[in-house]
Amino acid sequence: MIFEVHIEVRHRAGVADPEGATIERSLPALGFDGVRDVHVGKSIRFTLEATDEASARSEVEDMCARFLSNPVIEDVEIHLREGAAA
Amino acid sequence: MIFEVHIEVRHRAGVADPEGATIERSLPALGFDGVRDVHVGKSIRFTLEATDEASARSEVEDMCARFLSNPVIEDVEIHLREGAAA
Repeated sequence: MIFEVHIEVRHRAGVADPEGATIERSLPALGFDGVRDVHVGKSIRFTLEATDEASARSEVEDMCARFLSNPVIEDVEIHLREGAAA
Repeated sequence: MIFEVHIEVRHRAGVADPEGATIERSLPALGFDGVRDVHVGKSIRFTLEATDEASARSEVEDMCARFLSNPVIEDVEIHLREGAAA
């Protein structure tokens, strides 16, 4: 089976987010008011061949823990969707 | 009204994605096979105060075009959701 995977990697609450802070400080100067709590993270998308959804999910969790995120300071949100067969 | 905004900024199709290519090349060496078409983008989340959804959406589109993305090489996907009142 082919799965479409979307992973969002975010700074854990309380961890500094300099990029988000910079955006939040800059937007008013461009005339955009009313923006709060800006957080910037990474969005990773790919297709994954796996036998079923459970094994696809566990493989993606493993990828995140070992390579795609830093579990000490980042949280991940994993979205899986069955994709068109190859 | 308060809106929860999620913007995903992605490389336009055909634009080089070195980070995605590096991940795609590295995963098999870590024992992860079956991964294709890796694309890495940015995920930006914030809250926005606006009079209604239409004006919130147009303001966010303007932010993306002028500051949060590079319209020449990037596409954006905007998700808006009414948030808890302040």
